[in-house]
Amino acid sequence: MKTHHLKLYNTLSRQKEDFQPLNPPFVGMYVCGPTVYGDAHLGHGRPAITFDTVNRYLTHLGYRVRYVRNITDVGHLQGDADEGEDKIEKKAKLEKLEPMEVAKQYTDTYHRDMQLLNTWKPSIEPRATGHIPEQIALVEAILKEGLAYEVNGSVYFDVLKYNETYKYGKLSGRVIEELISGSRDLDGQGEKHNSVDFALWKNASPEHLMKWDSPWGMGFPGWHLECTAMSSKYLGKQFDIHGGGMDLMFPHHECEIAQGNACNHQDPAKYWMHNNMITINGQKMGKSLGNFINLQELFTGNHKLLEQAYSPMTIRYFILTAHYRSTLDFSNEALKAAQKGYKKIINGLRITRSLEFQPADVALDEEQIKQIEQSITAAYRAMDDDFNTAQAIGHLFNLLKKINSIFTGQLPSAAFGEEVFAKLKNTYITFVEEILGLIEEKSDVQNPMLELLLKLYSEAKTARDYNKVDEIRSGLKELGFVVKDMKDKIDWAYEE
Amino acid sequence: MKTHHLKLYNTLSRQKEDFQPLNPPFVGMYVCGPTVYGDAHLGHGRPAITFDTVNRYLTHLGYRVRYVRNITDVGHLQGDADEGEDKIEKKAKLEKLEPMEVAKQYTDTYHRDMQLLNTWKPSIEPRATGHIPEQIALVEAILKEGLAYEVNGSVYFDVLKYNETYKYGKLSGRVIEELISGSRDLDGQGEKHNSVDFALWKNASPEHLMKWDSPWGMGFPGWHLECTAMSSKYLGKQFDIHGGGMDLMFPHHECEIAQGNACNHQDPAKYWMHNNMITINGQKMGKSLGNFINLQELFTGNHKLLEQAYSPMTIRYFILTAHYRSTLDFSNEALKAAQKGYKKIINGLRITRSLEFQPADVALDEEQIKQIEQSITAAYRAMDDDFNTAQAIGHLFNLLKKINSIFTGQLPSAAFGEEVFAKLKNTYITFVEEILGLIEEKSDVQNPMLELLLKLYSEAKTARDYNKVDEIRSGLKELGFVVKDMKDKIDWAYEE
Repeated sequence: MKTHHLKLYNTLSRQKEDFQPLNPPFVGMYVCGPTVYGDAHLGHGRPAITFDTVNRYLTHLGYRVRYVRNITDVGHLQGDADEGEDKIEKKAKLEKLEPMEVAKQYTDTYHRDMQLLNTWKPSIEPRATGHIPEQIALVEAILKEGLAYEVNGSVYFDVLKYNETYKYGKLSGRVIEELISGSRDLDGQGEKHNSVDFALWKNASPEHLMKWDSPWGMGFPGWHLECTAMSSKYLGKQFDIHGGGMDLMFPHHECEIAQGNACNHQDPAKYWMHNNMITINGQKMGKSLGNFINLQELFTGNHKLLEQAYSPMTIRYFILTAHYRSTLDFSNEALKAAQKGYKKIINGLRITRSLEFQPADVALDEEQIKQIEQSITAAYRAMDDDFNTAQAIGHLFNLLKKINSIFTGQLPSAAFGEEVFAKLKNTYITFVEEILGLIEEKSDVQNPMLELLLKLYSEAKTARDYNKVDEIRSGLKELGFVVKDMKDKIDWAYEE
Repeated sequence: MKTHHLKLYNTLSRQKEDFQPLNPPFVGMYVCGPTVYGDAHLGHGRPAITFDTVNRYLTHLGYRVRYVRNITDVGHLQGDADEGEDKIEKKAKLEKLEPMEVAKQYTDTYHRDMQLLNTWKPSIEPRATGHIPEQIALVEAILKEGLAYEVNGSVYFDVLKYNETYKYGKLSGRVIEELISGSRDLDGQGEKHNSVDFALWKNASPEHLMKWDSPWGMGFPGWHLECTAMSSKYLGKQFDIHGGGMDLMFPHHECEIAQGNACNHQDPAKYWMHNNMITINGQKMGKSLGNFINLQELFTGNHKLLEQAYSPMTIRYFILTAHYRSTLDFSNEALKAAQKGYKKIINGLRITRSLEFQPADVALDEEQIKQIEQSITAAYRAMDDDFNTAQAIGHLFNLLKKINSIFTGQLPSAAFGEEVFAKLKNTYITFVEEILGLIEEKSDVQNPMLELLLKLYSEAKTARDYNKVDEIRSGLKELGFVVKDMKDKIDWAYEE
């Protein structure tokens, strides 16, 4: 493993801490995935790219990361509370589908979009409905500890009782007395002993579609439970990193900590990482505000707030130009600037790959060498400082300046010496592709380019320049296309 | 729904039957999916394409198909018997991964390959590990019926007892007495009352990784059980079509029928469809024979038996050129011919799309019209005759001849009349894209085409043909590329 002094901001301690995994070189990371009842939007894109970059950088440093990201396909109620309709079931009723068809459809579109954003797939992607026995076992364990109670076939976590031994609110900084006094007695909360309690298991009414048998009758798990069940199953009772969007800090992650402590008498995760939120033209994104943008809408430009399409790599680049703990505002101006920046980076990648060291009888340029080494060190230091991709990108542009000066012939590569030249080249390529996950995005230009070539062909024919005609014909043949030169038109076909 | 007289071959009756769904316009179809412990190979490709085509054609006819295809991520033991190591767990031990990491990895590669083959995603894709409570409930139900027995924490299906009321072997045509006399008492089968019995639930040894609590102790479900649990959950106790490869007919599908009848006193599926097997150069495909070819190896050409790469659409086309109940032999010769055929079909698609009806003062050509109408009818009749894609493709080539004669100007479109012209065009496009699922496969020609254009640019510059230079420069600019005309070289870049 490369010796790096990696620090990350732990929401639990509110400070940057040295990263010391529990069982190096292994790192267990759990990140809250989507509730699959709608298309993926920016609120899914940012955490996916943030923790993908964490995964990539840790892997680059030599850690062996087991990255678990769940699919919530049951139990997430409207309004994120313990009452209301299940989000997936509600969507299924609207679309007249079986709930699992809805879950499948939006799991597929989520995967498609995450692939377009070039995120690595998680090592394990467990589903809530796939872990019902494990969740029931957890409820039984918490009941046995005396930290939950059953009412009418539902089981609730007893937050006040838990708080006698542990500290509920330590992640989010909420104070339990304020939570109690601030809450109103909402409809249907009558079963709970206290408004801060949360459901571990909910009794299902007969018309409820997604339900399972349990010691408390037919029902379904509470939303917070699945993450405790699946993280402990695949990463152990305590693991290294738990990630997610800041909006999940309370109540979701707070409840996960409570459930973990109730069962295992220890915090589930050592480090809690939260990415900050996204705004659109300075406003919070929300369905009711009409500024809610799906990833597909961004990729196609098909949204009233968008002046053009923005490619997946432009979005990825844009998200990386801010530190993950800063808010990030989406606007056409900012996205257009990101598009330029991304293309600069990628043009740089092509140039860098094409550069070869040219031995020559020139002196080493010590000042240039020093600048390069400083930029490389600074890029790594930025990543080591709580994954500061924004700063790392700045240092990459400094490296790119040197690369460009070699490419244009301003500086001979020999002035850097073979070793530094190789380091410059490798660092740039490694950062762009491997660590930041930015890849060349080719658009489909086959047909328009063929048209341009056929136009040149036809002009050459008119000019009786038969060498040119042959050149174009044979050039296309090498690429698998046949020029069809017919009486009244010229066309192309795939060579059969 | 279009009125069609669709017939399909029902393995259960050994004859072609009229297709009459239980609850039209809905059709429930369950197809056995992969055991995810290795890369997808031809034995996965053929059923996926076969039942994709069934799904596509039924959908084209107006049926609303719910297509369920499972992922077996536990319980499939080595040798397909009831003893031995779990296939996924064994692979996990070899690769030092958590079993669910193995399952995830090969589920992902399976999905990637199925997407390349342009198969529609199933409506629901349930996982065996995600349906443990449902499987336990089935075991309990079968025990209650007196058709299973428990031994040392394992539960076995009592085939002889079942056979007193039902007929075990009716799908595969096996005779139970012969099965018994033909079987040896293998190691570890000592628990079974009879060698033909099969496991519903297996007791797990302490070192077994994938196991769940059950009324019979820690264990895991038998391989056949998941399909009964998941098909009945998502399609009902009886549904329309059950599909799979012929190798699954016995014992897997036979056991599914037994389980379904034991629980629900009725056959699970009305129609059983089985695709035939694949051979390689005339031989059965097998790992031990060294002729085992993965789909990725076909797509890349990276296998000692392959003379070149064959694209996913070539493979799809090739599989469709045989009726699904015929064996199909893979050889370089046959695949090269398929590549030509596929390209012919796709060149035809481009031409067809570009054709416009040209009104003209010509007489209708009744003979031509008759031939077109006969070919269209014949293409549908082939599909209606147990999905005979091989014959349908033949009729498409007849249509393509007419299309080509219009394209080359041999026949005026007006000779067909506007209606028949439109029908010709629509039928061809619908069959190729919608029913057969053959799409244009563009290769990545961006960079070599740019090189060809820059060569023409540079030659024009040398010849001082500045109009041509400008034409190429502006043509490329429209496509998002900038020509970089430097002192000593010419290059391109993405416009920033």
